[in-house]
Amino acid sequence: MPSSPSELHGKRFPVLDKGYVILLEHMGSDERVVDAARVSTGSKTGVDPERDRSLIFFLMENKHGTPFEHVVFQFAIKCPLFVARQWMRHRIASYNERSARYRVFEEEFYIPRRADIPPIFSEADLKEYEDVLKHEHEVYQRLVQKAQPYKEHRQRAREVLRALLGTAYYTEFYWTINFRSLMNFMDLRTGTGAQWEIKQYAAVIADIARQVVPLCYAAYERYVLKKPAAGDLEAGLR
Amino acid sequence: MPSSPSELHGKRFPVLDKGYVILLEHMGSDERVVDAARVSTGSKTGVDPERDRSLIFFLMENKHGTPFEHVVFQFAIKCPLFVARQWMRHRIASYNERSARYRVFEEEFYIPRRADIPPIFSEADLKEYEDVLKHEHEVYQRLVQKAQPYKEHRQRAREVLRALLGTAYYTEFYWTINFRSLMNFMDLRTGTGAQWEIKQYAAVIADIARQVVPLCYAAYERYVLKKPAAGDLEAGLR
Amino acid sequence: MPSSPSELHGKRFPVLDKGYVILLEHMGSDERVVDAARVSTGSKTGVDPERDRSLIFFLMENKHGTPFEHVVFQFAIKCPLFVARQWMRHRIASYNERSARYRVFEEEFYIPRRADIPPIFSEADLKEYEDVLKHEHEVYQRLVQKAQPYKEHRQRAREVLRALLGTAYYTEFYWTINFRSLMNFMDLRTGTGAQWEIKQYAAVIADIARQVVPLCYAAYERYVLKKPAAGDLEAGLR
Amino acid sequence: MPSSPSELHGKRFPVLDKGYVILLEHMGSDERVVDAARVSTGSKTGVDPERDRSLIFFLMENKHGTPFEHVVFQFAIKCPLFVARQWMRHRIASYNERSARYRVFEEEFYIPRRADIPPIFSEADLKEYEDVLKHEHEVYQRLVQKAQPYKEHRQRAREVLRALLGTAYYTEFYWTINFRSLMNFMDLRTGTGAQWEIKQYAAVIADIARQVVPLCYAAYERYVLKKPAAGDLEAGLR
Repeated sequence: MPSSPSELHGKRFPVLDKGYVILLEHMGSDERVVDAARVSTGSKTGVDPERDRSLIFFLMENKHGTPFEHVVFQFAIKCPLFVARQWMRHRIASYNERSARYRVFEEEFYIPRRADIPPIFSEADLKEYEDVLKHEHEVYQRLVQKAQPYKEHRQRAREVLRALLGTAYYTEFYWTINFRSLMNFMDLRTGTGAQWEIKQYAAVIADIARQVVPLCYAAYERYVLKKPAAGDLEAGLR
Repeated sequence: MPSSPSELHGKRFPVLDKGYVILLEHMGSDERVVDAARVSTGSKTGVDPERDRSLIFFLMENKHGTPFEHVVFQFAIKCPLFVARQWMRHRIASYNERSARYRVFEEEFYIPRRADIPPIFSEADLKEYEDVLKHEHEVYQRLVQKAQPYKEHRQRAREVLRALLGTAYYTEFYWTINFRSLMNFMDLRTGTGAQWEIKQYAAVIADIARQVVPLCYAAYERYVLKKPAAGDLEAGLR
Repeated sequence: MPSSPSELHGKRFPVLDKGYVILLEHMGSDERVVDAARVSTGSKTGVDPERDRSLIFFLMENKHGTPFEHVVFQFAIKCPLFVARQWMRHRIASYNERSARYRVFEEEFYIPRRADIPPIFSEADLKEYEDVLKHEHEVYQRLVQKAQPYKEHRQRAREVLRALLGTAYYTEFYWTINFRSLMNFMDLRTGTGAQWEIKQYAAVIADIARQVVPLCYAAYERYVLKKPAAGDLEAGLR
Repeated sequence: MPSSPSELHGKRFPVLDKGYVILLEHMGSDERVVDAARVSTGSKTGVDPERDRSLIFFLMENKHGTPFEHVVFQFAIKCPLFVARQWMRHRIASYNERSARYRVFEEEFYIPRRADIPPIFSEADLKEYEDVLKHEHEVYQRLVQKAQPYKEHRQRAREVLRALLGTAYYTEFYWTINFRSLMNFMDLRTGTGAQWEIKQYAAVIADIARQVVPLCYAAYERYVLKKPAAGDLEAGLR
């Protein structure tokens, strides 16, 4: 763990073959959650770390979610389109995504490792997967180039032709989300129902969140994920 | 215009080459908006249609948005993935989309008409666009089939392989949205900045909304779209 | 249980001494939730009630919340201001409240029953509680009347003078909310942490919801409230 | 204007007779909005301040709201209950309010200045307003004290008895809100329809926002408030 969570800012965590997660900035802390909750009760903060921890665990256990909204994270994400599509279903968050109307897609798509696809697929199958995606980009690229000299047609060409490209292609976006909504994201996207690829992102994000708000994260593990108390205690005692 | 907006329920409005918009159901009416606004003031409703109209126009002009939230629409939509991606950026709404993890994609993709793409593209270019999309599905289909006998690999195969398919492929979703949020959708997606394809959907939806809540729609045209008063008056007098 | 949930529309359920809950309208049903979920999987609906029930229970258990958003309720509520203050903290919903800037408050405030306040309070204490609230209204009324002849001062007088009135005074509002958000409301406002008065409202609302979407409600009881399976089975078999 | 917006953090801005606004913290800046918008287009930032300004103005004029969501403010607010009631109708924000279930209300209520109430009211009328509010607290205080020795009755006594107190009484809350939602708050609460008291708060908050994101604020003034271009240019050139 870094001596301060802000040391995480700007650090690039690679995910999948060409993606990443970067924490650009964050606002708030375990202490801020405690302060927000204590607006209610008027009791003093910071005197007793054990009482702070108890309060955070009490809030989480009793579904008092609002104090956790005062911690806000800002990320830059690079991921395949099919991952972004799952991601953006989370509505209590802010997104700004790269637009394929203004920018031409690079030939940059997700290739799963052998270990991450069913063993029934052969090396040749995987090669064919790659070839299809490469071919998509060749045609896309050629046709986009054809429109390039015509200022009045460029954007329309790009926006129609991107429809050729598979959702294995990478996109990028800015993502601002508060810790309460992030818990929901982590809960669903690290869970057994989530697709393997988005789980890799959710795991990195969970690791960042754990470093930024360790007590909140420990309470989340205990009461939302319902992990056994041992891990929880450990996290709480760090 | 139908004698009652509920006659619109279940009617399929075709959009693009293979898409549609269906109004499944709606809740509320111009009168309900007036009632909701008059909870504030306690004055009686329904006595004077001219006063109802004035109230709706006053609310819209002065950005009193909440009464418009009590009218709710439920649609079934079929559109290309690239359109769905733009659509689902609208967060104040509810979505349930077909999952390519559970269902195999049909070979069903959007083919723009010649008139809707830049004239610099030849017949052969358009043919190539189609060929790429067909080829994507051939490979997708073959590999999905290969996994079909293996119960433990089927879902994983489908969820990885769909990444081959371009966003021209069609998807379907349920969409529930209130009229306030719908105005924002219509304003942005019928506007000059919107892509031609989503505009076709937004136009059909706007036409449905106009029939369900004619006074609200007229006020929206006047104060949000800022259309000249003539069209507005017409709508109001219908 | 009524033969059809729409028989509930417009029926006034009294709550506390002078309040009420009215279901004005609703949209959707258990079947609609199943349909919305099956957009994902493409399997047919309505053939097998037992499979529908299983699907709803599966969705609830696995926190697939979105299909429950397609059921929407519209209520008219009358409650004390202090109850409304707790109520309106629920943000995923639409509100239109009576305005004390446009309407003069009646002398109508909440008087708790002896049984509902701590036994340490005497009859005289309760009398004093009432007297304070009556006196507030006397002064409020007198000063509002004083401004009544002056058109330019009326609204300002009302909006300043209402600050005299205790939050025991009754207010009214329209409330539109989907079933997913309603579950959160019911969970928190029928729970042990909720104030007795809002619990009375939440209980009536829960009873209405149970009649409108009995399977969804049974699944909510089982997986959100975590009630023992017996009650759940009963509800499921109704 | 301070040399850095973070010098504003923790500074207490008095509002009305006993209220305040404190900016606890903020995240983001004009540059961050530009960066978020340029994720779309991929063009470089920070090279040309004039282009940054143009981009922000373009986004605002064309209702591209999402880039403005990446700037987040965290405030501590103290205001009368009737102001808080109007405030908390703004749903796209996070609130944690002092609870009268856990804390006993001080005798601290809003007294308008003579200049701020209609001149038809006499000194004696204002005195009576004060007397009513004082009397409310006397009775409240006496009855709360009576329950104090009984641990099992304390909270219930406090939560019932607070209903006596007028909405002139002061409350406190934490408020986290992004700049997009804040624009909506400022637009409605500094406008002609807003009550004088909340306008005082909105003016202070607008002044803080202007110092934190001067270009965004200038664009808001120009395209949302539609102030004449002169003021706008001034703000842009600061």
